[in-house]
Amino acid sequence: MSTKDFALFGAPPAFAESLHCGQRYFPSWQRYRESFRGIFERQYYTEYGPLNQQLEQKLQQFLGVKHAICVTNETVGMMMLAGALGLKGKVILPAFAHIGAAQSLGWAGLEPVFCDADPDTHQIDIDQVAGLIDKDVSAIMGAHLWGGACDTKALAKLAEARGVQLYFDAAHGFGCAVDGIKIGNFGRAEVLSFHQDNILNASEGGCICTNDDELAARLRTMRSSAGAGKPVEVTKTVNGRMSEAQCAIALLNLEDFAQNRQNNQDLCKIYEAQLAAIPGLQLVRHGEVSVSNHQNVVCRVDESEFGISRDRLVALLKAENVHARRCFHPVLHRSIPYAQELPQYQSRLPIADSLAVSCIQLPIGALVSKQNVERICEILKRAHLEAPEILVTAVS
Amino acid sequence: MSTKDFALFGAPPAFAESLHCGQRYFPSWQRYRESFRGIFERQYYTEYGPLNQQLEQKLQQFLGVKHAICVTNETVGMMMLAGALGLKGKVILPAFAHIGAAQSLGWAGLEPVFCDADPDTHQIDIDQVAGLIDKDVSAIMGAHLWGGACDTKALAKLAEARGVQLYFDAAHGFGCAVDGIKIGNFGRAEVLSFHQDNILNASEGGCICTNDDELAARLRTMRSSAGAGKPVEVTKTVNGRMSEAQCAIALLNLEDFAQNRQNNQDLCKIYEAQLAAIPGLQLVRHGEVSVSNHQNVVCRVDESEFGISRDRLVALLKAENVHARRCFHPVLHRSIPYAQELPQYQSRLPIADSLAVSCIQLPIGALVSKQNVERICEILKRAHLEAPEILVTAVS
Repeated sequence: MSTKDFALFGAPPAFAESLHCGQRYFPSWQRYRESFRGIFERQYYTEYGPLNQQLEQKLQQFLGVKHAICVTNETVGMMMLAGALGLKGKVILPAFAHIGAAQSLGWAGLEPVFCDADPDTHQIDIDQVAGLIDKDVSAIMGAHLWGGACDTKALAKLAEARGVQLYFDAAHGFGCAVDGIKIGNFGRAEVLSFHQDNILNASEGGCICTNDDELAARLRTMRSSAGAGKPVEVTKTVNGRMSEAQCAIALLNLEDFAQNRQNNQDLCKIYEAQLAAIPGLQLVRHGEVSVSNHQNVVCRVDESEFGISRDRLVALLKAENVHARRCFHPVLHRSIPYAQELPQYQSRLPIADSLAVSCIQLPIGALVSKQNVERICEILKRAHLEAPEILVTAVS
Repeated sequence: MSTKDFALFGAPPAFAESLHCGQRYFPSWQRYRESFRGIFERQYYTEYGPLNQQLEQKLQQFLGVKHAICVTNETVGMMMLAGALGLKGKVILPAFAHIGAAQSLGWAGLEPVFCDADPDTHQIDIDQVAGLIDKDVSAIMGAHLWGGACDTKALAKLAEARGVQLYFDAAHGFGCAVDGIKIGNFGRAEVLSFHQDNILNASEGGCICTNDDELAARLRTMRSSAGAGKPVEVTKTVNGRMSEAQCAIALLNLEDFAQNRQNNQDLCKIYEAQLAAIPGLQLVRHGEVSVSNHQNVVCRVDESEFGISRDRLVALLKAENVHARRCFHPVLHRSIPYAQELPQYQSRLPIADSLAVSCIQLPIGALVSKQNVERICEILKRAHLEAPEILVTAVS
C-alpha cells in the first residue's frame, strides 16, 4: 500500500461512476409512468391541480400540521414567508446555513443578522441569539441542519419573551421529529425543501408548513394558485406554484419514505462504525431530534489528527469519483454580498468559520450502496494512514 | 329562439366540457413518455441538466438571440432581471398588464410607475411614457400583449435619450417578430413565459433572453444552476432553475411550434370573420408585429352597441361552459397594494381603466376545435340579438 494506490497520484479511480451527496430517491419507472400518464390524460399540469391537492392533504396528515402549502422551491417559499409574516428590518439566522436562507431575506427587503453555531451539532448557537436581538430585529429564522434540529424550545421561549417572530428553514428536516412532534410544526411556520438532495423530493420543490389559518390563507394567495382557498388581502404575490409533475414525484416518494429513511439509517450505521476508528474525523451529533431522517453524513476533519486538510481530502476523494462536498462554503458572512456589506461579522463567528473550513459531506442515498460506503470508508482510513506521504507527494 | 335557449336561463349548456382560454399545447403521450423515460434513466432531474442545456441552445437558435436563460417561471425571471440590471427607485410599466409584472418590482425593492394603454392595440401608450420619466426612474418595462408587440423602436429611442434602461415582459410573445426580428432580442433583455396558457409551454416555466454577455453571466449565477457557466459576482441569488421535466415538455412543444401557431391562426380567422358581423365586439389589433403567434383572442365589448355588459356576457358564457376571462381585472393601479399605496394613479389612466372593464378573452388553443369556435360565435351573436330580453330576464 502506498500513495500510488490513490487515483490522485495515478491509480485508476476506486469508482467507475461518480458518487454524490444528494439523496436522489425516485420511484420506479413503472409507477412514475403511471402517475405521469394521469397528468397527461387530465391535461392538468399546474395551478393547484388534483395532485397538488392530494399532496398537501397527505403532507398535512404525515406531518400532523394544519397547513402544508406546496411551493415551486424552498427559496421562493422562504421569500414568500418573510413577506407573509410582515417582517421588517432585520432577521437573525445562523451563519452556518444555506445561502438561500440569507438570500430569501434580501428579496423581502430584510437584512440578515448572523449568529454563530454549536460546534457539535452545527445548529444555531442559542446562547448567542439573545444578545443579537435589538429594536430592528423582527424575527429569528432557525435552521434544522443535517437531519438534526436546532433547539426549538429555547428559541420559542426567547422569541416570545422578546416579542419577535420565529420561523425555520427546514430544508433538511422532512420526517424528523422533536419529542415526537414532526418538523413543520414549530414557530410561526417552517419551510421544507423537496430538492432532489433531500429525502422527500419533487425534483425541485418545497412546502411551507404552519398551524396558523390566517398565515396559511395569506401564503395561498401569495402563491397565485387559483382555486386554493378564498383569496385574502396581501400586498405581495409571486408565482410560487408547484406543478403537477413535481407533485407526482413527491407523492410517490412520500409512499417510499419509511424505506428510504431506513436505507439512510443503514448506510449511516456503516459510516458511524467505520469512522469511529479513524482519528480526526468527527461525525456531527444530531442535536434535539427524537427521530432523524439520516439524510446527511457530515463530519469535521481535524487536520492535526487526521493528517491532511479538509480541502486536500476533498480533492483526494474527487479523484476516486467520490464527490464529497465542503459544507456551506463560503459561510454566509463571507459570501457575496455580505462580506462587503456587513463587515462587522468577520471576527464574530469563530465556530461557523471553523465548521466551514473543516466539514465534509459524504455520499449517501438512493445511488449509494453499502459496498460503496465500505469502500469510501476504506479510502478515508488509508488517507489517514498515508497522510504523511500524501503531504509530500506531487499530484500526478 | 329566446332567452330560454341560454344555459344561464335554464337550457342545458352548449358544451358538455369546459372550454378555457389557455393554449395548453402538449406533445403526444408517446413522445412525452419517451422523453421522461430518458430523464428517469439518467436520474438527472434538475440543476442545468442535459435537457436544460439542449433547450437553451434550441431557443437561442430559434429566437436568434445570444442567451436564453431558462427559469422556473416568468415572475421569478422578471424579479431576477430587475436585480441583475441593478435597477433603483422606480420603473415605468403599463397599467394594463399582468399583476406579476408589477409584483416582480416589489421583490426587487422597486416602485412601479403606471402608464396608460393604446385603445386599439392595448399596448403601452408611447406618448405618455416620456412624461413619466423623472430622476427616480431607472427603467422602462415594456410588455408585449396578446401576440402583438409594443412599439420597441420608440421605447428604445426614448430610453437611450433619457438614460434609462429598457426591458420587456414578453409573456405572450413567444415566436412573434417585429420587422422579422423575434421577440427576445429587444431592450436589455426580455422575459418569456412558458406557462401552459402560452403557445410554448413547459407546464410552468420561463426564459430570460438577452444579447448582453455580462448580463447573461450575472443571470446564470443568480439562478443558482451549478455548471451553467463560470460564476460571476452578484449580490442577489435565488433558486430560479427550470427542472428537466419542465425542459422536456418545452423541447417537445418547440418541435410543434409551427403547427400550433397555424392552428391558432386558423381559429383566429374564424373568430375574425364571425365577430366582424356582431356589433359592439371589437377584436384587438396586433400592433407592430410582422409575425404573430395568434395565441390570444381578445375583444372589447362595447355595452351600448352590443347590448349587454362585459361582465354579463362572461356570466352568460360561463353557464354554457365557456370560460371567457376578464382581461387584467382589476387593472394594476386598482389592485392591492397599489390602489392604497399609490392613489395618484386612480384618475390618470382612462384607457387602461376602460380596457379592464370592457375586454374579454375567448377560448383558443389545443383543446378548442373549429366547431367549438363556430358555436361560441353563434352564442355571441345570439347574445347580441337577444340582448334586450336578456337584460330583463331573471337568472334561473
